[in-house]
Amino acid sequence: MVRINEVPFVKGHGTGNDFIIIPDIDAKKDLTAEQVRHLCDRHRGIGGNGVLRVVRTEHMRGYESQAAEAEFFMDYRNADGSLAEMCGNGARVFARYLDAVGLVTKNDFVIGTRGGSVAVTLHTDHTVSLVMGKANSPQVTSMPQVTVGSHSWKAVPVWIPNPHAVTFLDSLADAGSLVDMPHVAPDSTFPEGVNVEFVVVHGPRHVAMRVYERGVGETLACGTGACAVAWASRRHLEPDLVGESSYTVDMPGGSVTVTEDSDGLLRLTGPADLVARGTVLLA
Amino acid sequence: MVRINEVPFVKGHGTGNDFIIIPDIDAKKDLTAEQVRHLCDRHRGIGGNGVLRVVRTEHMRGYESQAAEAEFFMDYRNADGSLAEMCGNGARVFARYLDAVGLVTKNDFVIGTRGGSVAVTLHTDHTVSLVMGKANSPQVTSMPQVTVGSHSWKAVPVWIPNPHAVTFLDSLADAGSLVDMPHVAPDSTFPEGVNVEFVVVHGPRHVAMRVYERGVGETLACGTGACAVAWASRRHLEPDLVGESSYTVDMPGGSVTVTEDSDGLLRLTGPADLVARGTVLLA
Repeated sequence: MVRINEVPFVKGHGTGNDFIIIPDIDAKKDLTAEQVRHLCDRHRGIGGNGVLRVVRTEHMRGYESQAAEAEFFMDYRNADGSLAEMCGNGARVFARYLDAVGLVTKNDFVIGTRGGSVAVTLHTDHTVSLVMGKANSPQVTSMPQVTVGSHSWKAVPVWIPNPHAVTFLDSLADAGSLVDMPHVAPDSTFPEGVNVEFVVVHGPRHVAMRVYERGVGETLACGTGACAVAWASRRHLEPDLVGESSYTVDMPGGSVTVTEDSDGLLRLTGPADLVARGTVLLA
Repeated sequence: MVRINEVPFVKGHGTGNDFIIIPDIDAKKDLTAEQVRHLCDRHRGIGGNGVLRVVRTEHMRGYESQAAEAEFFMDYRNADGSLAEMCGNGARVFARYLDAVGLVTKNDFVIGTRGGSVAVTLHTDHTVSLVMGKANSPQVTSMPQVTVGSHSWKAVPVWIPNPHAVTFLDSLADAGSLVDMPHVAPDSTFPEGVNVEFVVVHGPRHVAMRVYERGVGETLACGTGACAVAWASRRHLEPDLVGESSYTVDMPGGSVTVTEDSDGLLRLTGPADLVARGTVLLA
């Protein structure tokens, strides 16, 4: 017999990256990869870039140690059903949800993720900040080269901690339709693949970007990508700057702000909105 | 002041064409084109191919005369906010909704649409049938030609009542990626544009198709397209057939059955599923 569940959900998005939130505070739902794919199916399910399961951290097997600082854990799944460590846009939406339903009562709190605990701040202008950690750009003997069609550019390699190749160009249109993954050489720089950002300067500490996410394609926004772009922009455009900096990063899905303090700690601030709630059928 | 509404919705689909159902029995909500676009936005809203507003026909200005036979009217809007006359997949989902919430109590009933009243039957196997009317294929001096890349085929023109060019080929792959609208000549055959179907024969009265919908692109399924394909297949494959026929039409989003009675009346039968319900924020 087919068992039919009607499961509560909330749908939200941050700069156009959208997520289905499944509350499961006491970890009683074991979402299968197939159920995640169904939820994210844009025609036969609700549709989203991923699922954010909300679990009390003490019940999240293997991650119980984060419970001391993070009461709730973001069990993030990609639309294809696979597990993911962290997602900047998803974490903002997750934080907005915890506040909206009253699971947190402060504006500063910590959420658990597979990539470690993340400090969050809810602002009165309805944006959410995340502490994203520091960027890491190892010494490379030569800068990697990004090629799209007949255009090639040198790129800045940045790990945050996932890999990025930040490519400055004269016009975002030069990156073309981005139907296919840009070619990045040499392969040895990014053995596990790379996200490629294309960046133009709009004004003082104001840049615009497009992003091709590895394994996904061009997306409306990428939180770690925006951080990589701000980090690389500061070094590319203002190499002598000392102290804090704040960059506005425009993406097709909306704008975020990335601040870097004097220790190199990056903080991502952007919108997070909840748009619908209800119940969904899960076989 | 921004007025925020939390509006009830149901999401459903038929062969992968998905719809947001907004109950508005007493016609108190005047959905704007912008609200429809927001609802159908796959990243910032819920996402769908269109909106089905549920209105008691007597309250549907300009269509009150259908109230004698159709208690409820399907106010169909395309994802871009424009009005549409009819939608075969939408009408099945609409009928499923009326039954699921108890607004109808029989398995045979009539729904109102801008294209006229449509007779509906709910089956015990969870499929829904619609009477789609008769096809119309005027005498043309020469068959129109459909071209994709370096391939060209003669097509059968069919109105049901919207225009279709049904194209038989050896392999659905020959139609390529269908990123762009196929070229159909001469223009004079279809002055208001045309939906193009590509068809292969799978077996006796069993065909498979892909469809490029005018103004939309390739879609997972098209109800009137399936009817046009069944109608043309019967004349193309069994020109001497007399009496009833029943064709199975496979589409990328699922399969439907199209029957034609001895008077040429077409009936479309296919799945219709409701997947989620809740409330959505509408500014």
